[in-house]
Amino acid sequence: MNPVFGEKRLNVENALKLARKIESDLYVLPELFNTGYAFTSRDEALELAEEIPGQTTEKLAEYCRENDVYIVGGIAERENGRVYNSAVAVGPDGLIGKYRKSHLFYAEKKWFSPGDTGFRVFTLKKLKVKIGIIICFDWVFPEASRVLALKGADIICHPSNLVLPYAQKAMLTRSFENKVFTVTANRVGSEKRGGYKFLFTGLSQVTNPKMEILVQASRDREEVKVVEIDVEEARNKKITEFNDLFLDRRVDLYREILG
Amino acid sequence: MNPVFGEKRLNVENALKLARKIESDLYVLPELFNTGYAFTSRDEALELAEEIPGQTTEKLAEYCRENDVYIVGGIAERENGRVYNSAVAVGPDGLIGKYRKSHLFYAEKKWFSPGDTGFRVFTLKKLKVKIGIIICFDWVFPEASRVLALKGADIICHPSNLVLPYAQKAMLTRSFENKVFTVTANRVGSEKRGGYKFLFTGLSQVTNPKMEILVQASRDREEVKVVEIDVEEARNKKITEFNDLFLDRRVDLYREILG
Repeated sequence: MNPVFGEKRLNVENALKLARKIESDLYVLPELFNTGYAFTSRDEALELAEEIPGQTTEKLAEYCRENDVYIVGGIAERENGRVYNSAVAVGPDGLIGKYRKSHLFYAEKKWFSPGDTGFRVFTLKKLKVKIGIIICFDWVFPEASRVLALKGADIICHPSNLVLPYAQKAMLTRSFENKVFTVTANRVGSEKRGGYKFLFTGLSQVTNPKMEILVQASRDREEVKVVEIDVEEARNKKITEFNDLFLDRRVDLYREILG
Repeated sequence: MNPVFGEKRLNVENALKLARKIESDLYVLPELFNTGYAFTSRDEALELAEEIPGQTTEKLAEYCRENDVYIVGGIAERENGRVYNSAVAVGPDGLIGKYRKSHLFYAEKKWFSPGDTGFRVFTLKKLKVKIGIIICFDWVFPEASRVLALKGADIICHPSNLVLPYAQKAMLTRSFENKVFTVTANRVGSEKRGGYKFLFTGLSQVTNPKMEILVQASRDREEVKVVEIDVEEARNKKITEFNDLFLDRRVDLYREILG
């Protein structure tokens, strides 16, 4: 997607128009898909943010109810005067849960409060699938995807507004090391506001536990793509008859990770 | 390298002959470079293993002393009737330290005891550089490289006998996420013994914190390559004016990593 800054109604409509183009069980939208990315002040972010559930969540829920599908997407969230860079998981029965971005990138630190939800796994009942959510820059911290995989996520949904060229390659490592699928839904286009200019890198993709890109979108066009996966591939962590990627972990030697 | 199974004297001589071809401050040799890989029994491994320090370590130390250099290489280690898949760090003043492979791959579990040293950082005094060591399959566990980087490693030395095609790509992620250099010294050739056949994937490489391969060796020939690096690149963990990859870690949200 290439959202228009501040045009929430338009952006949500556009997201659902894209969704309508293709049949899928689970749709993943970019980070901050309803507001755009380049805020110039905390007040502006607060103004455009919504409570969860709120207007955008309701619109997504309506679509999910009518089409019997699931959507994950990033929106700006307001709560008690704070603003979070959040994502919602919505299904046929409405809001399933939300995640607040844990690792804020660049000037986001000026507008958003750091996420306090931790890394959460949600069950998509109809699909019998467990998903986790990370947002954009969270990708660089292996702990984020690791925690989700250890909690049983089959698929890591990754709403993004990536401006650096690294994540798409690194998500292959995240997929392999955790034996999960990943869905990176990245923005295209650019935003120039208040002295900041961001050029988003597109190339949305789905990766599998074998370190393969199953489908990838373009660098610069709005696009919706679908791929069929067998989530069972994410549930067997064995990679040889002697090796299970989770059972082989040497937790006794990892203490320094928690400082 | 393409060691000959069981021919320890020949393999050590060959390693030093390769080293002599090129001037470097730090040389990294493959996993089990002195013994070869495809053991067929624990007794065979015990027989070929050495104490550390022992014969192979002494030979490496002699080379380091004469040439004022450092060597990291993988050897089979014997201690109290156990065998470890270990690596030594050796310098002009002799043995600096050893690491015992934490995550054993495939049939290694039948010959070797799991490493009990944890992930250790060694200072190469003359170079004013800190190195950490992981061995082969350790690469797939992000915690291993993470612990070394958090302990201050500038360079992760990665003696390997890789048979799968994934590590060379994933080490780019390890470099970027930890902002360290990595040196994967992988075997070439194949070994067929006792019902097992291994084809090693070569492509030894050095990666930098910008997610680049600085130099890469061939898939199937013995070769020694050198690259000059500025270790300072590994000491600044900032990636934007607002982001430091280590200070940004949300240790409060990673608890599940330790189970």
